[in-house]
Amino acid sequence: MADAITPRSQDFAQWYNEIVRRAELADYTPVRGCMVIRPYGYALWENIQAALDRRFKETGHQNAYFPLFIPYSFIQKESEHIEGFSPQLAVVTHGGGEKLEEPLVVRPTSETIIGHLYAKWINSYRDLPLLINQWANVVRWEKATRPFLRTLEFLWQEGHTAHRTEKDAREETLKILELYRAFAEEDVCLSVLAGRKSESEKFAGAVETYAIEAMMPDGKALQSGTSHFLGQNFAKAFDIKFLDEDNVEKYVWTTSWGVSHRIVGGLIMQHGDDNGLVLPPQVAPYQVVVVPIIYDQTKAQVLEAAEKLTAMLKGASAFGEPLRVHADLDDTSSPGFKFSKWELKGVPVRLEIGPKDLAASQVMSVARDNRAKQPLKFDLGTGAFEHEKLEGILKGVHQRLKERAGEEMRSRLIETADFGEFKEIVAGKGFAVAGWDGTAETEAAVKEQTSATVRVLKSEVSSGKVTCVFSGRPAQYIAYWGQSY
Amino acid sequence: MADAITPRSQDFAQWYNEIVRRAELADYTPVRGCMVIRPYGYALWENIQAALDRRFKETGHQNAYFPLFIPYSFIQKESEHIEGFSPQLAVVTHGGGEKLEEPLVVRPTSETIIGHLYAKWINSYRDLPLLINQWANVVRWEKATRPFLRTLEFLWQEGHTAHRTEKDAREETLKILELYRAFAEEDVCLSVLAGRKSESEKFAGAVETYAIEAMMPDGKALQSGTSHFLGQNFAKAFDIKFLDEDNVEKYVWTTSWGVSHRIVGGLIMQHGDDNGLVLPPQVAPYQVVVVPIIYDQTKAQVLEAAEKLTAMLKGASAFGEPLRVHADLDDTSSPGFKFSKWELKGVPVRLEIGPKDLAASQVMSVARDNRAKQPLKFDLGTGAFEHEKLEGILKGVHQRLKERAGEEMRSRLIETADFGEFKEIVAGKGFAVAGWDGTAETEAAVKEQTSATVRVLKSEVSSGKVTCVFSGRPAQYIAYWGQSY
Repeated sequence: MADAITPRSQDFAQWYNEIVRRAELADYTPVRGCMVIRPYGYALWENIQAALDRRFKETGHQNAYFPLFIPYSFIQKESEHIEGFSPQLAVVTHGGGEKLEEPLVVRPTSETIIGHLYAKWINSYRDLPLLINQWANVVRWEKATRPFLRTLEFLWQEGHTAHRTEKDAREETLKILELYRAFAEEDVCLSVLAGRKSESEKFAGAVETYAIEAMMPDGKALQSGTSHFLGQNFAKAFDIKFLDEDNVEKYVWTTSWGVSHRIVGGLIMQHGDDNGLVLPPQVAPYQVVVVPIIYDQTKAQVLEAAEKLTAMLKGASAFGEPLRVHADLDDTSSPGFKFSKWELKGVPVRLEIGPKDLAASQVMSVARDNRAKQPLKFDLGTGAFEHEKLEGILKGVHQRLKERAGEEMRSRLIETADFGEFKEIVAGKGFAVAGWDGTAETEAAVKEQTSATVRVLKSEVSSGKVTCVFSGRPAQYIAYWGQSY
Repeated sequence: MADAITPRSQDFAQWYNEIVRRAELADYTPVRGCMVIRPYGYALWENIQAALDRRFKETGHQNAYFPLFIPYSFIQKESEHIEGFSPQLAVVTHGGGEKLEEPLVVRPTSETIIGHLYAKWINSYRDLPLLINQWANVVRWEKATRPFLRTLEFLWQEGHTAHRTEKDAREETLKILELYRAFAEEDVCLSVLAGRKSESEKFAGAVETYAIEAMMPDGKALQSGTSHFLGQNFAKAFDIKFLDEDNVEKYVWTTSWGVSHRIVGGLIMQHGDDNGLVLPPQVAPYQVVVVPIIYDQTKAQVLEAAEKLTAMLKGASAFGEPLRVHADLDDTSSPGFKFSKWELKGVPVRLEIGPKDLAASQVMSVARDNRAKQPLKFDLGTGAFEHEKLEGILKGVHQRLKERAGEEMRSRLIETADFGEFKEIVAGKGFAVAGWDGTAETEAAVKEQTSATVRVLKSEVSSGKVTCVFSGRPAQYIAYWGQSY
């Protein structure tokens, strides 16, 4: 705790790595590219999971658990799928001391094994839609890795649904895209662009891929969730058929969609500051930390008051859930040390309680994001406390984080029709909003010259009046362009 | 649904397999020994997880997530550990298209990788105790497998704690044993014996292993949770040291402990009957199912009443949590078909609502375990309903399941000093309570002749008056003996 944190403005990447380690969110392990998520980071992930899971269940999805291992031959059944994933596979060749007849792949995603099982389970139109989600670990053999953002093994959820008609499956794809947008904006205070990806950025095996893309303070995009319309590609590869009401056997239409612990990386980058993490109250492991201000003469009374306050707060609620509160009663470190510690850890609201507060029957609240102070009445005798005011402060932090993310995004979406300006924009200013002729050649050339790609499509162009920012040909789309993580 | 279920008394193993498949708890997959947990089975597991997780958090444990892969060399560092686990390992030899320099093991358990990280994190006595739990998938290459009971990949929680003194670590080991006992008996209504295992049944690398053992209807033991005192074995293998208050560097003392989805198999076997599952209300995916009794003339009113009842119940609670209720409003199948379906799925209480019930302003409750019927007042106009009575019925089911399990266990613990009788007991009657001379030779010989082993030790014998049921020598322990899953 002694060394100062590298300022965010000075070296963003270094700042990120320091925050992850020093706030004890995660640590490196001796397994290349695999991190350990420490208790504080995992509590954050658990709250994120709960927020997403609630949204899945409200929309009729159920959780299940499919095998970690997938027979190698399964991965090969969908031709684009194997092409996309084969360079990334971890392969189990030996089990129980013997060489396996067929190697097993550690799942990089589960469309194939789930496709096989859906073919068993789905017989009639009455079995549709089938709406299943899985919380799981997956493995993709990545070269360069960074905690939360890109790791060999990662935790995620993957939804897999099967539908009777193309229309139903397309609706599901977009329903989930909207669910992800609402989750990102409302639960974790990220501002995102939601839309369709270009062909080159599509999931291997999908007909169309949609994504939510957040913009990080360095101007780069963080793909934070994807929703794929898979058409009948996997249905045909795995023979998922049903007898429809008209007595005709048909292939189902499927979708898949996922959000990973990468979103934790997004939170850190979006909201953090030079003092450390700033966590959105709805998902923070601790929403409130109680810090007694201890002097020798009044130590006993102040500690007693802090304990009473904490016990009382543990019975309170915020955002419709039990309030998550922690008391730092350690009497060997100074208040200043503790303030820094809990600022580093991003706790949204600190409640200070010292002898002067006790005398005034109050505690002092300090908001993490803007350090705004506000006293709250606390009567030690009766236990009376201004709960609603505290909840209001927490909501205020949440709202400000959300608004700031929105403002930053809006101010950094920059329209341009000039490729010189385009290059400057995507080099750190933000996302360029610009015409694209829709060809893979243009996207590849732009990527080579600027490292930027189409993040999502903004709209189709039918007028012929917009030109491609790179080729000058008529634009087929207006796209959001940016460099990405 | 058409074929009758094999009666439990006729073929217990076949009954079990049918129930698992037909109640849609789990299914086989093309990956040998790996099952898929279907939504109904996974919802049951989620409730079991929540019940255990609450107990862990109440006792100061935090969750974290460690890597799936462990370097092969790590597994070898603790000599007993590698000896025990090497025949069961799944090994990743290739990643990203290349052969790995060092193979990676898919974790069979995580003492080694966690030991390595604890050595990084623990420096001072102030860092102790470190109380961490992980919910994860693990892989052990088993030959014979059965859904939930023994699978190559399984879901579990593994706790790993580090302590300053031997006393602290021993206390933790026993605290968790007691936590597991309370969980098994109170949350999932299994009656268990809790105690120390013999040397031969110890975890590979432990100083002492404790377990909870349930008795299944076929008289066999189901080891349902284990708690290991690891001494300083892993501390020394992974160099986990701390500077104590006396300024002396010391090795920590560690424990580990786990419960897996095997407990789901225990629930099925313990409580089920010839009609299917019987689920303990505290963990049942649906605690209540609403079944309208539909006739053509009164269909509209009855469906409307069932919907109102369901909506109202969804706002109610049971066992301090929101009530989990499902309505089966399908109007194409008969009430009898639905009764069978939800009995198969083990829903603790069925609420029937038909035209006669409507006329009498009531619904009829039927308990799953004993089919006891009890009318509950339900006023369609005002929505008034006898909530407390319903909760009482749910609690009654829970209590009866718990008591029955306890009675069955007690009636099948049979004391004997005669090896002829011993053989009969462990061949299906239950557990033999008998003297053991404490030698590995005796335990091995008994196992060879009867397939039974010491499940847990009941007590030490100091008097010299008890003799070993097999060798006739003075007994060192009185033990519970039984065949096991």
